Amino acid sequence: MANKRMGRQTVKLTRPPSVVSYACIGSKQEGKGPLAGYFDELCPDSFFGKTTWEQGEAAMQERVLSRALHKGGLQREDLDYLFAGDLLNQCIGSSFGLRDFQIPFFGIYGACSTMGEGLALAALLIDGGFAQLVGAQTSSHFCTAERQYRMPVPYGSQRSPTAQWTATAAGCCILGSQGDGPYLTHVTCGKIVDLGITDSSNMGAAMAPAAYDTLSALFQESSTTPNDYDLILTGDLGALGSRIVREQFAKDGVKLGDRYTDCGLLLYDREKQDMHAGGSGCGCSAAVLNGYVLRGMQEGRWRKVLFAPTGALLSPTSSFQGQSIPGICHAVVFSTTKEVR
Amino acid sequence: MANKRMGRQTVKLTRPPSVVSYACIGSKQEGKGPLAGYFDELCPDSFFGKTTWEQGEAAMQERVLSRALHKGGLQREDLDYLFAGDLLNQCIGSSFGLRDFQIPFFGIYGACSTMGEGLALAALLIDGGFAQLVGAQTSSHFCTAERQYRMPVPYGSQRSPTAQWTATAAGCCILGSQGDGPYLTHVTCGKIVDLGITDSSNMGAAMAPAAYDTLSALFQESSTTPNDYDLILTGDLGALGSRIVREQFAKDGVKLGDRYTDCGLLLYDREKQDMHAGGSGCGCSAAVLNGYVLRGMQEGRWRKVLFAPTGALLSPTSSFQGQSIPGICHAVVFSTTKEVR
Repeated sequence: MANKRMGRQTVKLTRPPSVVSYACIGSKQEGKGPLAGYFDELCPDSFFGKTTWEQGEAAMQERVLSRALHKGGLQREDLDYLFAGDLLNQCIGSSFGLRDFQIPFFGIYGACSTMGEGLALAALLIDGGFAQLVGAQTSSHFCTAERQYRMPVPYGSQRSPTAQWTATAAGCCILGSQGDGPYLTHVTCGKIVDLGITDSSNMGAAMAPAAYDTLSALFQESSTTPNDYDLILTGDLGALGSRIVREQFAKDGVKLGDRYTDCGLLLYDREKQDMHAGGSGCGCSAAVLNGYVLRGMQEGRWRKVLFAPTGALLSPTSSFQGQSIPGICHAVVFSTTKEVR
Repeated sequence: MANKRMGRQTVKLTRPPSVVSYACIGSKQEGKGPLAGYFDELCPDSFFGKTTWEQGEAAMQERVLSRALHKGGLQREDLDYLFAGDLLNQCIGSSFGLRDFQIPFFGIYGACSTMGEGLALAALLIDGGFAQLVGAQTSSHFCTAERQYRMPVPYGSQRSPTAQWTATAAGCCILGSQGDGPYLTHVTCGKIVDLGITDSSNMGAAMAPAAYDTLSALFQESSTTPNDYDLILTGDLGALGSRIVREQFAKDGVKLGDRYTDCGLLLYDREKQDMHAGGSGCGCSAAVLNGYVLRGMQEGRWRKVLFAPTGALLSPTSSFQGQSIPGICHAVVFSTTKEVR
């Protein structure tokens, strides 16, 4: 059997799946940010028509899949598999939002790396010949995340300068064995990396080592350098975490340069919107990818994009027990051409 | 591209991966049950040497993987991917237990269907040519589950007759492209099924419709009947849920007969151990499979086994908000011969 791996973590897809459709939705703050024009829906009601925020988050998952299907001219029956997960305990945003679709479902948990994990597995199942159309999606919600990880929003807690703002957003990407691109050409599966950071108000620093680890593996195993990409995006490391990644590569003599940025730095206007270290949450990188980035590729702004969302695999319980924060980063490469180097 | 599907949910693997190694560990109650002799380790200390139960559950994940690697004569570097998840919020049993192994990691969430989901994805990645050795594992812990889903154990809450006992157990299965079997020949990915059950003390009834749905799809799409299997096992439906599955098939004129049972009915002696409706938790089906079942296949007790663990995709929050309980069931078929019909 052919092993399609380029190394320990990276797979080069022999028949790169194509993006067939994508959609993203957000709420009030996302509508005030610089990427507002790239959203398919901006709902000013943070309950999304429901009576609880958790049900609101589930409604986001339902709506973003419906929109992606509609934009692609697809029916729910057309999807062979759906990968989804979110930050809520037991991933109820996904399971409740998607229960009526009747699509074979694989629940995943990668914290804020979920969009990368879902795309990676979707691409592998298509390239392996097991499916023709597979969806990958995720969501996050400021109010459900604050209540679950920190304090209920009405308590009005002070936030530390390193804290990030959990996006109220969802993104869905549908990959297919046929299509006009962008194509998903490489998958790099992350390892869990934990360098001992314990401050759960500084997730960027906790996740940065995982991003550095996965990006290093991708560059090395695929024999590429940052210069081979038009855009390199980590997912929600924010200002501090992305600076750490930049510095780590600089120590190796590798300049990431202007082509590198972080989804958490793109979604909001940090000055005007007072977002501290930037945006975060599964929905942050998912919305940035499934709007701004993929549309930008289709419009010719970038030809080759490295998308590497990062997740912090902690829980409030693990933090209460004094544990450090394990991180993970799953990377995928999108290209406007099928040619794989 | 060849679509390897037999239908909407079932894939027939063209090069069925082999079980290369497996292990299971349990604690005090598991050691008093009828399957005690099939465990690789029975630890009477429910903390597994740690100071909190959550860290104890993580230790179970670490130990069961170490044992499976050791039994297979494998090093951690030999595994191409590892799939794992558990019931704890944000799956910290898996992420903390497995963070030191440095194995490319895909976190999954399928509640008590996790063992089936992990095996399904592991088998697909191997058959697709992306990996040669992949691990799938999960765990559950009575004390962490009680605290998180119901009441802390020291409160001494009364349990309802339909309640099940969350197993303190973990199981790990390593699949490979080479091996002497048993072989994993078919994968049936479940859909989320929710018929409106809201009683979170009656998970068996909530998950039974998902088991019926997935088993029906598998029988139909692979043109098999229950008679084609020597053993059909659902995962932790317990006494009530498994009776519902049996009755549903009887209504269709299909007799499951003696070859059908449930992992939740096997792990404990329900009479002597006072386990109410039976065992449950991700670790229940994982331990039953990765001891009793796989060893039984190797010893010639069964040739063809249908393993279909079931998960309840609820959270305490969704129940507090009056929501019903979505269920899911992922099924895989093991056979002592590679020949696929």
